Amino acid sequence: MLAACGLVFPVQAAEDTSDLPPLFAAEVERADAFVAGMMEQGITVPVPKDPGGGYTHEQHKRNFRAMYLAGDLYRITGDLKYRDFVRDMLLEYAELYPTLGDHPAKANQNVGRLFWQVLNDAMWLVHSVQGYANIRDTLTDEEREIIDNNVFRPAARFLSVDSERTFNLIHNHATWATAGVGMTGYLLGDRDMVDRALLGSDKSGETGFLRQTELLFSPDGYYTEGPYYQRFALLPFMVFADAIAKNEPERRIFEHRDGILKKALTTTIQLTYGGYFFPFNDAIRDKSLNTAELYEGVAIAYAETGDPGLLSIAKFQGRTVLSENGLKVSRDLEAGKPSPFNFKSILLSDGPDGDEGAVAVFRHGTGPRHTALVAKNSSQGMGHGHFDKLSWQLYDNGNEIVRDYGAARFLNIEAKEGGRYLPENESWAKQSIAHNALVVNETTHFGGDVKVADTFAPEQLYFSAQPELQVSTATIDSAYPEVNVTMTRTLALMDVAGLNAPVTVDVMRATGKGQLQFDLPLHYSGHIMETGFEPDRNVGPRPVLGESDGYQHIWVDGIGSPKADDAFMTWILDGRFYTYRFVPRDKMQVILAESGANDPDFNLRREPIVIQRASDTDSMTFVSMIETHGLYDGATEQTIGSRSLVASLRHVEHPKYDVVIVETKGGARTALAISYNDDPDAVHKVEIDGREVSWAGFAGRIEMGGEGN
Amino acid sequence: MLAACGLVFPVQAAEDTSDLPPLFAAEVERADAFVAGMMEQGITVPVPKDPGGGYTHEQHKRNFRAMYLAGDLYRITGDLKYRDFVRDMLLEYAELYPTLGDHPAKANQNVGRLFWQVLNDAMWLVHSVQGYANIRDTLTDEEREIIDNNVFRPAARFLSVDSERTFNLIHNHATWATAGVGMTGYLLGDRDMVDRALLGSDKSGETGFLRQTELLFSPDGYYTEGPYYQRFALLPFMVFADAIAKNEPERRIFEHRDGILKKALTTTIQLTYGGYFFPFNDAIRDKSLNTAELYEGVAIAYAETGDPGLLSIAKFQGRTVLSENGLKVSRDLEAGKPSPFNFKSILLSDGPDGDEGAVAVFRHGTGPRHTALVAKNSSQGMGHGHFDKLSWQLYDNGNEIVRDYGAARFLNIEAKEGGRYLPENESWAKQSIAHNALVVNETTHFGGDVKVADTFAPEQLYFSAQPELQVSTATIDSAYPEVNVTMTRTLALMDVAGLNAPVTVDVMRATGKGQLQFDLPLHYSGHIMETGFEPDRNVGPRPVLGESDGYQHIWVDGIGSPKADDAFMTWILDGRFYTYRFVPRDKMQVILAESGANDPDFNLRREPIVIQRASDTDSMTFVSMIETHGLYDGATEQTIGSRSLVASLRHVEHPKYDVVIVETKGGARTALAISYNDDPDAVHKVEIDGREVSWAGFAGRIEMGGEGN
Repeated sequence: MLAACGLVFPVQAAEDTSDLPPLFAAEVERADAFVAGMMEQGITVPVPKDPGGGYTHEQHKRNFRAMYLAGDLYRITGDLKYRDFVRDMLLEYAELYPTLGDHPAKANQNVGRLFWQVLNDAMWLVHSVQGYANIRDTLTDEEREIIDNNVFRPAARFLSVDSERTFNLIHNHATWATAGVGMTGYLLGDRDMVDRALLGSDKSGETGFLRQTELLFSPDGYYTEGPYYQRFALLPFMVFADAIAKNEPERRIFEHRDGILKKALTTTIQLTYGGYFFPFNDAIRDKSLNTAELYEGVAIAYAETGDPGLLSIAKFQGRTVLSENGLKVSRDLEAGKPSPFNFKSILLSDGPDGDEGAVAVFRHGTGPRHTALVAKNSSQGMGHGHFDKLSWQLYDNGNEIVRDYGAARFLNIEAKEGGRYLPENESWAKQSIAHNALVVNETTHFGGDVKVADTFAPEQLYFSAQPELQVSTATIDSAYPEVNVTMTRTLALMDVAGLNAPVTVDVMRATGKGQLQFDLPLHYSGHIMETGFEPDRNVGPRPVLGESDGYQHIWVDGIGSPKADDAFMTWILDGRFYTYRFVPRDKMQVILAESGANDPDFNLRREPIVIQRASDTDSMTFVSMIETHGLYDGATEQTIGSRSLVASLRHVEHPKYDVVIVETKGGARTALAISYNDDPDAVHKVEIDGREVSWAGFAGRIEMGGEGN
Repeated sequence: MLAACGLVFPVQAAEDTSDLPPLFAAEVERADAFVAGMMEQGITVPVPKDPGGGYTHEQHKRNFRAMYLAGDLYRITGDLKYRDFVRDMLLEYAELYPTLGDHPAKANQNVGRLFWQVLNDAMWLVHSVQGYANIRDTLTDEEREIIDNNVFRPAARFLSVDSERTFNLIHNHATWATAGVGMTGYLLGDRDMVDRALLGSDKSGETGFLRQTELLFSPDGYYTEGPYYQRFALLPFMVFADAIAKNEPERRIFEHRDGILKKALTTTIQLTYGGYFFPFNDAIRDKSLNTAELYEGVAIAYAETGDPGLLSIAKFQGRTVLSENGLKVSRDLEAGKPSPFNFKSILLSDGPDGDEGAVAVFRHGTGPRHTALVAKNSSQGMGHGHFDKLSWQLYDNGNEIVRDYGAARFLNIEAKEGGRYLPENESWAKQSIAHNALVVNETTHFGGDVKVADTFAPEQLYFSAQPELQVSTATIDSAYPEVNVTMTRTLALMDVAGLNAPVTVDVMRATGKGQLQFDLPLHYSGHIMETGFEPDRNVGPRPVLGESDGYQHIWVDGIGSPKADDAFMTWILDGRFYTYRFVPRDKMQVILAESGANDPDFNLRREPIVIQRASDTDSMTFVSMIETHGLYDGATEQTIGSRSLVASLRHVEHPKYDVVIVETKGGARTALAISYNDDPDAVHKVEIDGREVSWAGFAGRIEMGGEGN
């Protein structure tokens, strides 16, 4: 929509609205319905009073949305009623704004004027200035002067001068503020305003929008809080960048830092399955690509890159924006130009310099039922981060098979603590045991101290995405400093001879000091079909597993002591079978469990867990795999392959290496061998079943044929 | 496909396959792929040996399917390879069949020849004879004679003479047998065979196909075992009737008994929500209209009735059959003729004479998110029946909100007892407490004795489906003979002034003898948002509710003693809120619970339950309602109306009447008044809040305005 930003682009001739492509036409209709409703209610610009959720808060939010959309509608249709609506509302704001001081419902030190928080004031400016840009040229000099001087200049001054502390942060709140101020600067032709937005209050470049693009994303465009927050942070980055590109093309903003903003957008999309964001950290699980931020981001990025994969994302969204970018997306979609978005195996480094861990995503297959393995080896991600070092997830057949809980929060649902984070977000969702993470001595990583956690990150040792073997290995030695635990985890998606879907292999090697207890939980989705071992079941009242660090929320269904040949369990989800198989050790216990205990207000979801537990040892290597198999079709009453096709999973212990051997019932053996040596040319040898096998580099896949071959 | 049945319809000229409508063309392709695979493997007609699931069993099933489809493909394409395949396979059967005696894996007294059960032999004949009909005219006299005399005559003789006992049952197994024999009779021009099929072995009409149409369905086309079994029973009825209609149109078979077969088909469809059958009795919950029986049934019924609503069902199915009927469906679908199927509020009587209870279905709205209230006041339904007298279900927003568990069974999943019914089907799924049914003294209806249960049925007292008030009332006094309990239940879908969705009202009136305990469970789907009352919670280990009759499978989350103003709870499912509200009584307890206890093999689903409990009383009237409200949208992070808009639910006690008053927070009062008197002209009066209100007939809805109006 910044095509209309005053300085460079005058308001264009109205479109012939009878000829708009369907997606765009629907968006026009939707916007018109909203604006018409607002017009019907009459312009209402109340004196600020209420906190978030209250009447004046919501009304000012509706107002900025209405001005933003009405500006677009005026540009598109040329209908003066939209222009007049934006103008009249801004004239009302021109009456109000100069009278305002700190918002009376001041929530914290970052107090706003129209809203209780300065962040909301920044969002107001980002949207309102876009609406204004679409009508400003058509106003009388007097109107323009009143609005410029009584609304936008003071609003920009408030954000960039009065709220300088926020403005100069390296934080997404500052991105909103710099975007609002910078776009206002372009529109009013105020170079000083633009420069402060781009380079920080002192124009040194130490802070400001450009610096934010350098420090808030990793070199791969990953935002440390995770995709749920990345989505939110993305909007002001994209719209301001779009304005910069149009007003100062010579800045080549989209090429800045090796195209970081385009990367940030595509990375956000890469961090999804079935359109839903991986629910890292305090994420709301039902957040998908169907969100306003991504409509805008996809349109801008498409206009910038012409990547036809983005059109298929727009198609999935079924929405766009009313800007020129949105029109281009809609036209090209209608013209049949989309191709599938390139979801791919990818390593995304974390941290501004890319050295604070990483997220590894492996994909196998395409389309809505493809397989995705996600290794979360990223850093803590600040206050919304979870204590889940080296955790992981598995998606298959359209479902999340190995889960991440996300946040314990029911957004905006009043009965659930007003929609805020619930106590169980701290006591469960953030704890290590609530993730697919190793837990030592029933205590959470870093003792659950976010300040400590934020100073350490895992190290990504290896990443490779070859067709038959995709591997990620990462390590961290700082999560349990008292007992000096180093944990090193390899997650692989590996083809196994004789199986038609790749298996997930998980090798978690932990060493520490003293007599430790190691728990390796797996949070899965599905209904148990069988367990190879016979657990001692608590079929009546079920005891609670522990006292704290999330253990108090776990009910124990049963405990087993598997032997090598029965160390597996199979569950079903949505017509597919999944067999989790592991290498049992002496005295290892397997705990079948469920979340939901000590939850007085029914705040938790009740979901199944299986925990491998090794006690009284200073080190432990957990070796596990997940096999996807078979098909259950209730409609045709057909079931095939409901039982595992794997005969055994073995682990060859070796001082330096880990070798995992999967043998199918058909007798074929496939090994994953890990040297932990990243020299690709170094050749490693180990003896298996009386035969020497070798591989080169960090990790290799070896087809060993049948026994005795 | 019986358009091709030999006697009347000669094989037609092959279709121009380049011009087939897409649905039909896809079906041709699918069939061709299957038949091509069978051809590639070569004709294999093994000597019968294995029971169900075993190799010879599955091979003979594949064979009949292949002959059936290849016959169709020959008719459609004229390609002789299909004809030759059917002929050659039947010549193989002609070698084998005369050598057969009782199947060696005899399962019970109803032993087959090709299969272990005579039912499978009948299914073989029904399909094979249709394949044969498509090629018979093209064979040499010699071939025809060999196949007629060595396959079809002996197969028909086996079913109708050697297995006379099954053949003459009034049971769906006999429907398959008579269909196979009758269609063979038409094809071979054997009048005697046809007459025995239609009128029973002795041609008296006491048994046989025509009698089955009279006794196996109620006058409304309801099949007593419920929709899951109705679907299965429907196929032979429809295909044989189609053959009768084409060979002996003068019988007007589709008009027989007031069009019972067309009714049976549409009734089967009426018993669905979102395409899935109501999971009455031992039903597999994932069984939908997407099933071979219904592809055939819809095509035949459409050819017979031309009802464009059936086309929309075919569209939902995305499948059809290769017969002339299927071609007509596909052509008319392509021509844009479908209109929405008329899902409607309907009362379906049970029993051959329609006097063994009923199923009442109320619909509100249209489309995939409409509301459906189902009152299951039908009879036991034989061995697969559940002890769930006067139980009910509620569907809304595309989901089952008030649930029926269906069968405890994982069909064809080997690890779950070979896919058979699980022990928990008896101990849980069939028990009264596992349904939304009243339970007295923690014992199941009829003491859980199916023989007793089958001799009694509820009486449907009233049914009305007016726009603002839809009501069903039914009663039964035989479920607890020892304590002489009569239970009378009214379920209503009623518009309430001030609410924009109708509420469900549930009035369960129970009287008995002695100091009884009445439990009224509600099996709901969703996550608790709040409870108005404060339950005593078992947040650690949860005790089990009882010892037997299903109570041993229930964990107790908490017990509350609600007061009038806090007697409600709200849950969320799929973005909609549901508030269950009830009228508390002195000493009434409310038990929050979950299924899943005493389930050593993880056979049960864990699902929430709320139970209203009244103890030490000889009578009890439970008054409850469910209000649907609000909206949660995770994508836009918007939540509206998460809290109930109802201020109170009251029950005016009266010797003869029940009056329920719903008052909204806005102050509007709406009453449901029940006189239990089915004289529509009788006027009833009662005093409420100091004011006399009146209504006529069995039940009325009264808008009482605000307090004091």
